[in-house]
Amino acid sequence: MREIIFGGASTLDNFFARLDHGMDWLRWSDEVAQVISDFWPRVDTVIMGRKTYEIAATSGQGAGYPGVANYVFSRSWIASPNPAVTLVRENTVDFIRRLKQQPGKDICLMGGGDFARSLFEADLIDEVGLNVHPVLLGEGIPAFHRMSHQINLELKDVRQFKTGCVLLTYRVAHEA
Amino acid sequence: MREIIFGGASTLDNFFARLDHGMDWLRWSDEVAQVISDFWPRVDTVIMGRKTYEIAATSGQGAGYPGVANYVFSRSWIASPNPAVTLVRENTVDFIRRLKQQPGKDICLMGGGDFARSLFEADLIDEVGLNVHPVLLGEGIPAFHRMSHQINLELKDVRQFKTGCVLLTYRVAHEA
Repeated sequence: MREIIFGGASTLDNFFARLDHGMDWLRWSDEVAQVISDFWPRVDTVIMGRKTYEIAATSGQGAGYPGVANYVFSRSWIASPNPAVTLVRENTVDFIRRLKQQPGKDICLMGGGDFARSLFEADLIDEVGLNVHPVLLGEGIPAFHRMSHQINLELKDVRQFKTGCVLLTYRVAHEA
Repeated sequence: MREIIFGGASTLDNFFARLDHGMDWLRWSDEVAQVISDFWPRVDTVIMGRKTYEIAATSGQGAGYPGVANYVFSRSWIASPNPAVTLVRENTVDFIRRLKQQPGKDICLMGGGDFARSLFEADLIDEVGLNVHPVLLGEGIPAFHRMSHQINLELKDVRQFKTGCVLLTYRVAHEA
């Protein structure tokens, strides 16, 4: 079955971005570029909530990610603002459960927030990758939001970058 | 100058404990025991806020940590409940700034919360060590609380344990 991968760059105090969505604290490097380049062929689908899409759109990813199917989940939109992006208005969990069972490559979950929380709580996420940056922002948009129950992980890999970032990769230990 | 070290076991979603202070998710191991055993000779002083002391007291550390000076910071206490523990009622930041300038070994900051936040915000913490456990608790007592400003770190060491925990050690990049 296709897997859903969640992750991104985070701070040590569990933020994905500043409150104003700023990511000026990101430490880009050739090592990170290589990780992303190695990762991207593994997926053919990107899923995200409406808020993440809108933030991505203002920062130049408005056309959707190239070369993959883009799904945006929103009950407030009537139609997709962009032909390259498929709007899903039905129940998120049901749709994604079916999507995972279709043939295809893995699925990348972009952004965090309530959308990621709903998928964690439905036990639909298979892998978590966090590139932990050496900074405490003090406040911001959390990588992990409060959730209704505990989720157990299994450490898969640790990679230390020259920038002082540490990429932690986990498998989700699915509920029985 | 003596250094102040902050840290402990945390979850990937930035918690030190469950809301009821539960730490049943802790993964103890010979490797962790060795890290603690190697660390302890480095310090001769433990500092903590009143809440951390009270939680420690109910879990059997009521006598204070052995072989070190124990300071508990509280404005609500009139006297120390324990002769092995020195009560500090004066301004926390001023007291700890003086404490750091006295001769002695390093100082271990126990617990998190508002007490740790006030020391981070006063730029008094020198090292951060988190043993990141492979679990998302969903809710709990945060390792890092919201803070008034960003704190930059420098990655010092990464250690992967057989339990799936990863010990991340950082130096605090002090403000100019």
